[in-house]
Amino acid sequence: MRTISSKENKIFRLCEQLTHKKYRDKLGLYIIEGENLLEEAVKNGAEIRTVLARPDYGGSFFGIDHRAFFLDDKLFNRISQTESSQGIMAITVKPQISPTGFIDERGGGNFVVLDRLQDPGNIGTILRTADAAGYRLAIIMKGTADVFSPKVVRAATGSLFRMPVVFMDSVDELTEYTRAAGKKLVATCLDGERYYYDENLRENIALIIGNEGSGISRELIQSSDLKIKIPMYGNIESLNASVAAGILMYEAVRP
Amino acid sequence: MRTISSKENKIFRLCEQLTHKKYRDKLGLYIIEGENLLEEAVKNGAEIRTVLARPDYGGSFFGIDHRAFFLDDKLFNRISQTESSQGIMAITVKPQISPTGFIDERGGGNFVVLDRLQDPGNIGTILRTADAAGYRLAIIMKGTADVFSPKVVRAATGSLFRMPVVFMDSVDELTEYTRAAGKKLVATCLDGERYYYDENLRENIALIIGNEGSGISRELIQSSDLKIKIPMYGNIESLNASVAAGILMYEAVRP
Repeated sequence: MRTISSKENKIFRLCEQLTHKKYRDKLGLYIIEGENLLEEAVKNGAEIRTVLARPDYGGSFFGIDHRAFFLDDKLFNRISQTESSQGIMAITVKPQISPTGFIDERGGGNFVVLDRLQDPGNIGTILRTADAAGYRLAIIMKGTADVFSPKVVRAATGSLFRMPVVFMDSVDELTEYTRAAGKKLVATCLDGERYYYDENLRENIALIIGNEGSGISRELIQSSDLKIKIPMYGNIESLNASVAAGILMYEAVRP
Repeated sequence: MRTISSKENKIFRLCEQLTHKKYRDKLGLYIIEGENLLEEAVKNGAEIRTVLARPDYGGSFFGIDHRAFFLDDKLFNRISQTESSQGIMAITVKPQISPTGFIDERGGGNFVVLDRLQDPGNIGTILRTADAAGYRLAIIMKGTADVFSPKVVRAATGSLFRMPVVFMDSVDELTEYTRAAGKKLVATCLDGERYYYDENLRENIALIIGNEGSGISRELIQSSDLKIKIPMYGNIESLNASVAAGILMYEAVRP
């Protein structure tokens, strides 16, 4: 297997570009890192463009050795975003998902809507939980941090290969879409009318999770079909965004 | 107000020490940062030893100006752990809580047990959620990352001032304690006997949350009174620790 050791190498240059959102958007590619993620990617049919391993990597290439290179230590460490890297990463093609596919779908699947979340750990964790709770689709509103950044990809622990993700620019686009898909748009807010467990959050909802600091935008709250609240003891003003998302999405799992 | 500008200054040296767990343990002190946390600390009666502000700080000192100093920019930034600091922090006394106080307590309060969690964000978020869910006590098992580290303190968003925290060294110590307190020890594991929503997790439980990678220790699972599982769709093996904790602790909030 060939070893890349020049920083002028085309593949290394591409990797460097993909550490920036601008190029991930432009090229439709992103980087995944670690043996587990690569295995999940292959298992779920994600399109792997190139595999890059540190010369001392002793693990599996999951049958894609023919598109694998070694990157020398120095170059590998410039791209790697994990503290104790396993020595393997891959350039992966972003899935192209059309929202329209989910409108005609039968069944009572749920959507989760991320409204300008900023913390990559929260975004990845919410995708992971949505996947575990059997949610069908994640809708990413404009202003949300990049779903394909290394930290999100890591926190999602493979769910990005299973959970379809689509992007929307405005509240109008979202409400038109959820209406066409027959989903009730659900917002959590402090002045919600009823507690979440008194409503049916089992199916056909599009659950909005808001920004960590400012919550769901006022416009989006006003356009919602259902406003709920989560009871909190003590002086707590809010829960962590991914915890709130977990509590609410798991309503779909209860019998 | 006096400005500290020498790195030989005693108060600055103390701050530097408190960035290390060893000295936080030895001195029984820790650092909180940000205007919100300082306000919460004062409101909840936490003992503030010294307040330190950047010279350009324009916010409130919440009535403890007499124990406040300015730290010049360079020194302040050496202690500050937040990317965009508000310019205020405080040396705070760790609460001294005796586990025995919770044994004789009336009522059906719940405990959360952290079994060797490592991610400070998870630890802080679990304390925050426990507080919101009306839990009475957090038990920190030996091997868990420091509860008074800056990242935990930040993620707990003030709950450390309200949620009592005690420390235990062994499974024996824990089981003896939960038995005396009349709490059922609950473990989540893949081979749990029943789903969490089929059990009564409303009161008098001590809910164990396990290490992010390896889960709850085998010894602790074997000593548990109740083994439950969380259903998961897809190929997901586990939920994020703080999401799982949130879903399970909020069982106590449902009517």
